Amino acid sequence: MKIKIEQKILAKNEDYALANRKYFKRNNIFCINMISSPGSGKTTILEQTAKAMKDKLNIAVIEGDLYTEFDADRIRKTGLQAVQIETKGACHLTAEQITKAVHKLDTANLNVIVIENVGNLVCPSDFDLGELVRVVVLSTAEGDDKCAKYPKSFVQADVMLINKIDLAQHLDFNIAKVKRDARKLNKDLKIFEISAKTSYGMNKWFNWLTLATKALKH
Amino acid sequence: MKIKIEQKILAKNEDYALANRKYFKRNNIFCINMISSPGSGKTTILEQTAKAMKDKLNIAVIEGDLYTEFDADRIRKTGLQAVQIETKGACHLTAEQITKAVHKLDTANLNVIVIENVGNLVCPSDFDLGELVRVVVLSTAEGDDKCAKYPKSFVQADVMLINKIDLAQHLDFNIAKVKRDARKLNKDLKIFEISAKTSYGMNKWFNWLTLATKALKH
Repeated sequence: MKIKIEQKILAKNEDYALANRKYFKRNNIFCINMISSPGSGKTTILEQTAKAMKDKLNIAVIEGDLYTEFDADRIRKTGLQAVQIETKGACHLTAEQITKAVHKLDTANLNVIVIENVGNLVCPSDFDLGELVRVVVLSTAEGDDKCAKYPKSFVQADVMLINKIDLAQHLDFNIAKVKRDARKLNKDLKIFEISAKTSYGMNKWFNWLTLATKALKH
Repeated sequence: MKIKIEQKILAKNEDYALANRKYFKRNNIFCINMISSPGSGKTTILEQTAKAMKDKLNIAVIEGDLYTEFDADRIRKTGLQAVQIETKGACHLTAEQITKAVHKLDTANLNVIVIENVGNLVCPSDFDLGELVRVVVLSTAEGDDKCAKYPKSFVQADVMLINKIDLAQHLDFNIAKVKRDARKLNKDLKIFEISAKTSYGMNKWFNWLTLATKALKH
């Protein structure tokens, strides 16, 4: 019984995800689903990306949180459009919520939509939102054993951002081990070592985003 | 339909939780359910607690992870009993899993069982495991906005450990704000500032654990 209900929920989600993906492709919008634990630095990465890319790409952000509009407010301060989804306790976003959030955006001339999922390394990985690319963020403060413990988030990602590289010197975090573990799960994973705080490595991420967005049009 | 199924799952969980709680009380076992995001330092806190308390309290640990036996292995190296539960992808532990895990422990002369829940600040808070006390861990690296964003974990906790205090100097983490936010949600919350890595503040946590365990017998 439980399994049947879950299948029904996932099937309904899949319908919305397919429709979202068609919409994004038809409108040349590069849509990213960003997944991580709470506090890995997703919003700071997006603030820095917004500032650096504002003359190059028209980006909008959809923020997912259980409660509060904090993150959408932070993004709006950079000048970008942002829509906040409050899940009121639910542990992940759904494709239907994304469909509704996109309706609230001015999508004329939009190049990129980044969905910042609920801070949770488990549940969001089961829900396709219709994104074109999935980005998993792991901060050095979380420890270097997370790929094996939470494999699904890494298996399904296209890009991995290892954030808070500036803290690594104060931690027992073996970057080479994490990259090895991640590539064991997902040999095609594109990995960037960054610090959104100090800007370390951020240019490579910006370049990748620019090229990936351009590639969509061809 | 979905709501009915959820109610059924939670009602079944509640039955096991009640039985667990009765068992713990009857046997004078102080049971703690420890909840946090991935990588907040729960296992390191337990390793340090195990080493410091080994002549004072007989502690056992039940480890919850999606996959791997890493954490139980770490605990066993300190000399404690540890049982690993692999949820195989599920985002939280259930009371039934705890009932079964307790059967695997030698409970003669046991004073404390610590359940290290799956690293997730959302889903575990909905599932009573039959614990006597709930401890939420927040690391300074996760940011100082987490109480408002994930209130349930803080509302339901008896104790909050603010871990990685040694990193706070490298971060924009306002400890006073976090304590204020947490107490706004839960005025009786007992808060300890600690660093499991440097031992900062750990003695206060050890003393609290010793006293709380003793109080159970009276």
